[in-house]
Amino acid sequence: MQISTTKKLFPLVTADIALFTLIDWELHVLLVKRDNDPAPDRWALPGGILRPDLDSSLDETAMRVLKSKVGVDVRYLEQVTTVSGPHRDPRGWSISTAYYALLPGELVPAAAGTSVKAIGWCSPVDLEDQLAFDHGFLLSEALARLRQKVRQGALPLHLLSDKFTLTDLQRACEAVLGTRLDKGAFRRLIKDEPSLRLLPGKFLRGPQRPAQLFEAAPDFRF
Amino acid sequence: MQISTTKKLFPLVTADIALFTLIDWELHVLLVKRDNDPAPDRWALPGGILRPDLDSSLDETAMRVLKSKVGVDVRYLEQVTTVSGPHRDPRGWSISTAYYALLPGELVPAAAGTSVKAIGWCSPVDLEDQLAFDHGFLLSEALARLRQKVRQGALPLHLLSDKFTLTDLQRACEAVLGTRLDKGAFRRLIKDEPSLRLLPGKFLRGPQRPAQLFEAAPDFRF
Repeated sequence: MQISTTKKLFPLVTADIALFTLIDWELHVLLVKRDNDPAPDRWALPGGILRPDLDSSLDETAMRVLKSKVGVDVRYLEQVTTVSGPHRDPRGWSISTAYYALLPGELVPAAAGTSVKAIGWCSPVDLEDQLAFDHGFLLSEALARLRQKVRQGALPLHLLSDKFTLTDLQRACEAVLGTRLDKGAFRRLIKDEPSLRLLPGKFLRGPQRPAQLFEAAPDFRF
Repeated sequence: MQISTTKKLFPLVTADIALFTLIDWELHVLLVKRDNDPAPDRWALPGGILRPDLDSSLDETAMRVLKSKVGVDVRYLEQVTTVSGPHRDPRGWSISTAYYALLPGELVPAAAGTSVKAIGWCSPVDLEDQLAFDHGFLLSEALARLRQKVRQGALPLHLLSDKFTLTDLQRACEAVLGTRLDKGAFRRLIKDEPSLRLLPGKFLRGPQRPAQLFEAAPDFRF
């Protein structure tokens, strides 16, 4: 492949995103099957090239790319790391800023967009060697960052519907961490959590006894 | 200022580094007084432009820049965040990957290098509004990351000489955190720390009773 002088002097800059959601209370990550060179037909994280004429930051690149390639407006997006070098993309010296994003299960996209042959939701574990470029590494860094944050007490409310029960919240934390949590200990931990707001008189009714519904406090920050 | 089409299509990419050291057991950060446009005579973090022909990663850009601008070979360097946008540098759309680096006090550089009018060591606190570009923000992010890591139990041995006492180590942690630590609690915390290796028969002798010397274990990772 021929690389022009311009490409030699100016690196290719991309944003790549690990978009997580819950399906049947298991953590899943969105993968795209690439349509174009390089790495056609390989599975990868959704991502795309920075457009200085369109984007006012790399965060905006990430949001624009998710919208165009997988039809998603994300609620929450966080930068994980930036990788760089001459060999990670055959088009030349390149930089990727990796993000993770969180999406409630009911907003899961159903259709592939621009430059995408197919989309699929997978368990994010043990994918390291199966993705194009260094996306396996980016995914494992993203998952590690998300887990670290939840382990330190952040509540992954962006994975839940607007209204949720404490059981939903515990399941979301368990899905992220990949471990079961003790119900009593979990309830004590979130007892006075200021980011949770009880919805008076609102309950989830089902076969079991009604469960109190909560919502995120207006100033909630993950 | 005229911006060429090439510059519009390809962003300027830089690495900027908050280089921390201890001077009289206080945390200091290295600032450089800029010699050239943009922001001549303003103080900034040392930094420089990615050279795809020289650098095999942005980490290498950071190391090369520290060597050429302030004459330092760093022992430890860690990526903090990547900032980006059309307005943060008057030369056009730009990206900066920010790092922090740690240096023992005895290796503090004495001379300014390429494109640097002067160097100075400052307390890293309350500099937010006084630096060129968004370097105040990058510095506060770097300091926050360093503090978080030490608060979580990482030992900032890269700030110390090859051989150090436990009092030295406590002082280094206190300097990073900006708070005093209880000696008894600190000693219990590091009692079985595998990254510390006692040097049998080696003591620091001074006016007080001899203090046991330690070194970093070979597999120490900050």
